[in-house]
Amino acid sequence: MAKRKSSPTMKDVAREANVAVGTVSKVINGIPVGKEYRLRVEEAIRKLNYRVNIYAQGMRSERTRIIQVVVPNLLNPFFAMLVHYTANELARRKYKTMLCTTDGDPDLEQSHILMAEQQMADGIICLSYSPSLRAPEGIPMVSIDRYFGARIPCVSSDNYGGGHLAAEKLMENGCRRLAFLRIGTSLASETNKRKDGFVSACEEHGVPYTLKLADDGTPYSVFEEFLREHARGGTLDFDGIFCVTDALACRIRTILQDMGFRVPEDVQIVGFDGVRDFGNMALPCSTIVQPLERIAETCVDLVLDGCLEKAPSLVCLPVSYAYGGTTRA
Amino acid sequence: MAKRKSSPTMKDVAREANVAVGTVSKVINGIPVGKEYRLRVEEAIRKLNYRVNIYAQGMRSERTRIIQVVVPNLLNPFFAMLVHYTANELARRKYKTMLCTTDGDPDLEQSHILMAEQQMADGIICLSYSPSLRAPEGIPMVSIDRYFGARIPCVSSDNYGGGHLAAEKLMENGCRRLAFLRIGTSLASETNKRKDGFVSACEEHGVPYTLKLADDGTPYSVFEEFLREHARGGTLDFDGIFCVTDALACRIRTILQDMGFRVPEDVQIVGFDGVRDFGNMALPCSTIVQPLERIAETCVDLVLDGCLEKAPSLVCLPVSYAYGGTTRA
Repeated sequence: MAKRKSSPTMKDVAREANVAVGTVSKVINGIPVGKEYRLRVEEAIRKLNYRVNIYAQGMRSERTRIIQVVVPNLLNPFFAMLVHYTANELARRKYKTMLCTTDGDPDLEQSHILMAEQQMADGIICLSYSPSLRAPEGIPMVSIDRYFGARIPCVSSDNYGGGHLAAEKLMENGCRRLAFLRIGTSLASETNKRKDGFVSACEEHGVPYTLKLADDGTPYSVFEEFLREHARGGTLDFDGIFCVTDALACRIRTILQDMGFRVPEDVQIVGFDGVRDFGNMALPCSTIVQPLERIAETCVDLVLDGCLEKAPSLVCLPVSYAYGGTTRA
Repeated sequence: MAKRKSSPTMKDVAREANVAVGTVSKVINGIPVGKEYRLRVEEAIRKLNYRVNIYAQGMRSERTRIIQVVVPNLLNPFFAMLVHYTANELARRKYKTMLCTTDGDPDLEQSHILMAEQQMADGIICLSYSPSLRAPEGIPMVSIDRYFGARIPCVSSDNYGGGHLAAEKLMENGCRRLAFLRIGTSLASETNKRKDGFVSACEEHGVPYTLKLADDGTPYSVFEEFLREHARGGTLDFDGIFCVTDALACRIRTILQDMGFRVPEDVQIVGFDGVRDFGNMALPCSTIVQPLERIAETCVDLVLDGCLEKAPSLVCLPVSYAYGGTTRA
């Protein structure tokens, strides 16, 4: 009589691989075992065509071990690096990364959050500038650079300290008339504290400063007009400029060089972020470096911890200054 | 008698939102409906605390609408841009992106593939240089830049044509002695065809050329030594250099400038990839531009098509030349 063929079980895999059932379970759940054991289990899984069926697993556990990571895009290297370190940290904890790029579309951001609520993910790490974003219910969420309220911990660099440090470094390098240039959201996001820290340092030291704040979507020509207005008679009204991002700092350097000014001899520039050319090469400008790996780790800690009621509402991580050619030191 | 409270159904949501059940289904499955309808359905879902339970859904359909995207890292902007466009294209087709970064670790790559086989994903788009990678069984996989065999379609730029075009552009710009510099895998990956196309163009035009090929992990100082050997007596043996990536082209420019050579006056450089500073700003060098959006779209087309037996084994997409300051034009 022919034996009825049924779906293989974890026990069948263990017998085939000549290992304990617990070893099979570990391999399936991505928990490290000796390489030889892993290869034997994998071989047995293939031979028996064993299928775990994550759905059945998920039905039992009500967990997916998936975290949604929501960012505007990966074209901006700052976002790309942040997602890189977050995905690595999640993988280290045996979690999977569901990547959601939104191009900043609030509807798309909201639909990703709705998806998570529908048991698609165990939590969300979100970098959003949407003013109306509704937080998920029943799912932990951690926000980067944007404070949504006490229920949602926000992780960011010490933006205030970074702005303060940028002004101090420019002054240490001999600058006596400073400017701060910003393009970005006018929302009360964490990044706006860069300006506040900068202003505070200028006022502490009695150094005059000028602010030029442009909203997202403004063409960069507004900065060129601003600089030309402040360069009548051939000398620039400032000898030190702090830009809200490295991307802006690099643009401003090009504009100034096209106007005939030397960087850093005539005017020094400090950016913010600490992104590197090609991810691992030179800094494109002197900058305030964000601790991206620590930001990623902290977000993962908080979202996996789950007890977000007890979590701090804001975690600011320390920044540092790095020389990158657009200042004297 | 109190009514027994049971889990809300899709019908309950439709009644609450005053829409058809089909509309609720569309919203849940991410199919576009009028914004007002969507908002009403979302509101009803929240009010009733309706949970879709993707596991039950997945048990029925045996599909996850998840595609695994496996890349070495997101620090390299080429990988980051590729993942960006792939995630956007998948989202447009209502698929989700499971991001797997591997740092090139073959064991990690293999475990991601095993995960997909265990019904974690409906398919895999993979950029791997691992020589021993085992293809998944029962799940479609598409490879980028690396040919694994007939069962796994490979999508890449026209690397041969790009190498040919780079040599031609250098010759058009007046170069008479060329060099090709490569760092990377010595595996028979698609990117090695850049060299072959370059050599072919040089030979067609009778222009002498030199090759310097270094394996992954070699320090960049080998290129500096190579260039110094070819710069005895103050002039460089080459007036045109093709580098296998933009990252290498930018390093080589810095090395040459530190040696006292002017770029592009003394020596012209062409890179490969077409990445932009900060994702959307200037090209860091003259380059052969890879059509990243089309590569992403093609990978998604192929992996979702599923009938990979009928798919072409190699799809090469056309590249173009772009001026970026390191050539005369």
